[in-house]
Amino acid sequence: MSAHPRLSLNQASIKYAPLQEALTATAEAGITSIGLWREPVADVGLPKATELVAASGLRVSSLCRGGFITASDHAARTAALDENRRAIDETAALAHAGAEGSAAVLVLVAGGLPDRDTDLRGARERVQDAIGHLVEHAHGAGVMLAVEPMHPMYAADRGVISTLGQALDIAEPFPANTVGVVVDAFHIWWDPEVFDQIARAGAQGRIASYQVNDWITPLPADSLLARGVMGHGHIDLPRLTQAVLAAGYTGDVEVEIFNQQLWDMPYQQAASLIAAQFDAIAMPKPNTAP
Amino acid sequence: MSAHPRLSLNQASIKYAPLQEALTATAEAGITSIGLWREPVADVGLPKATELVAASGLRVSSLCRGGFITASDHAARTAALDENRRAIDETAALAHAGAEGSAAVLVLVAGGLPDRDTDLRGARERVQDAIGHLVEHAHGAGVMLAVEPMHPMYAADRGVISTLGQALDIAEPFPANTVGVVVDAFHIWWDPEVFDQIARAGAQGRIASYQVNDWITPLPADSLLARGVMGHGHIDLPRLTQAVLAAGYTGDVEVEIFNQQLWDMPYQQAASLIAAQFDAIAMPKPNTAP
Repeated sequence: MSAHPRLSLNQASIKYAPLQEALTATAEAGITSIGLWREPVADVGLPKATELVAASGLRVSSLCRGGFITASDHAARTAALDENRRAIDETAALAHAGAEGSAAVLVLVAGGLPDRDTDLRGARERVQDAIGHLVEHAHGAGVMLAVEPMHPMYAADRGVISTLGQALDIAEPFPANTVGVVVDAFHIWWDPEVFDQIARAGAQGRIASYQVNDWITPLPADSLLARGVMGHGHIDLPRLTQAVLAAGYTGDVEVEIFNQQLWDMPYQQAASLIAAQFDAIAMPKPNTAP
Repeated sequence: MSAHPRLSLNQASIKYAPLQEALTATAEAGITSIGLWREPVADVGLPKATELVAASGLRVSSLCRGGFITASDHAARTAALDENRRAIDETAALAHAGAEGSAAVLVLVAGGLPDRDTDLRGARERVQDAIGHLVEHAHGAGVMLAVEPMHPMYAADRGVISTLGQALDIAEPFPANTVGVVVDAFHIWWDPEVFDQIARAGAQGRIASYQVNDWITPLPADSLLARGVMGHGHIDLPRLTQAVLAAGYTGDVEVEIFNQQLWDMPYQQAASLIAAQFDAIAMPKPNTAP
């Protein structure tokens, strides 16, 4: 059984799997790349995690996630920057442990508004400022910081960066090999400017990650679990994928789905469903593939 | 008891009130203007509704709502256009029945994607095309069509127009006295371009309605009821109001809140709470007010 050669399974899609089981389920579904999360890595410790990743033979496509850098008080801000430096080091170690073609990409979720604070512009400015404080460390570690614009429904409490254009505005002062953006279908599919901004991101060499999933309706009660499997929702994924590829993105394509039904499946069944829908909808195999 | 002279109570904020009770609750809270909905008007019939409105002495600030013009099949599309022509006529009649300063504004909600259709761009183009079919009728009736950009979380199933900039792009080919836009805080507060687009809308004379409310977290299970009373959430309303006024908007300011707790209050208590929070947060009274 072999999945699309550019498919990467983001660990969040099989959230309950400990690291070893996630690596196994991914490989057994014929998938050759994985997007890791810090929590299951921390559960076994970084040294053990790098061993398991190396033994798996899988590529590592990204580490989720750093960020949460909108705090306005000094102590919380300093702590967040330190935490991000640790995340940068983990990203480098895990990508190094992964198979050839791994990407040292740390996904950054901006964070929401501080409590009782309505100054959205101020929070957005602090995100850019914080990235400025992290760039040197990231560059030294060979890690690309990937700013993830989040769906506007999360602007208040999770991610104040709301569009791909805004993420690129934030990234632009920094070197393109160190600060890029995430193109996550769920977060950006609705944006009237999305195709222009994908082209802009590609022209700058800043597409650090492309993640696919789908937007399902009705919106589930827990809006954090509102994602569906590709083909189950309303996103024109073939067109989005075409735009990302046309913009020059050559990396792995992650499937990242927060969905209770998917989480309730046996891990390998979930991985196989994802691989099948990825081929059918998100990224049909090229005719020239073996 | 007297509320802010520019406050209008949108009927959706006291959703369960029949028309007469809504008019009474509004007036008894010292509010001098009301935003009407078609359903409670239809419940008593348009002739009776105009009588009740005239007897109330209130201004009418808008009628909600027309639109739902994204269908791709011919019959559904024709039916939607006919329905919108009826809504235009109702808008004219109700504004005429209202007190001096009433506004003949019909709020248009675009509608979502047709079933199993992922062509968002096509749906958006059909909205503009439909408005083109309605403009002459609206102009003849003296009614302003107000395109409402909706929060992107509704893009799939309710409103494919997602930003103020996009609503203005759609309105731009048409006369500014017939096609305008709605600035609804809940829908647009997160937009990095919102202040530029408010200025653009004002410069074109296209702000047909300004609606206030708040974005509360956590997002309630029913995302349609995710609005809070001004001051209970994360929107910087003073800044937004300042921008709308600076852009030259001189009309009534509607409070439109879909919120189960508000709906469960006695109507006049809800209206009074709204009037108080409007003064405190959304639009402090000018010092020159009596």
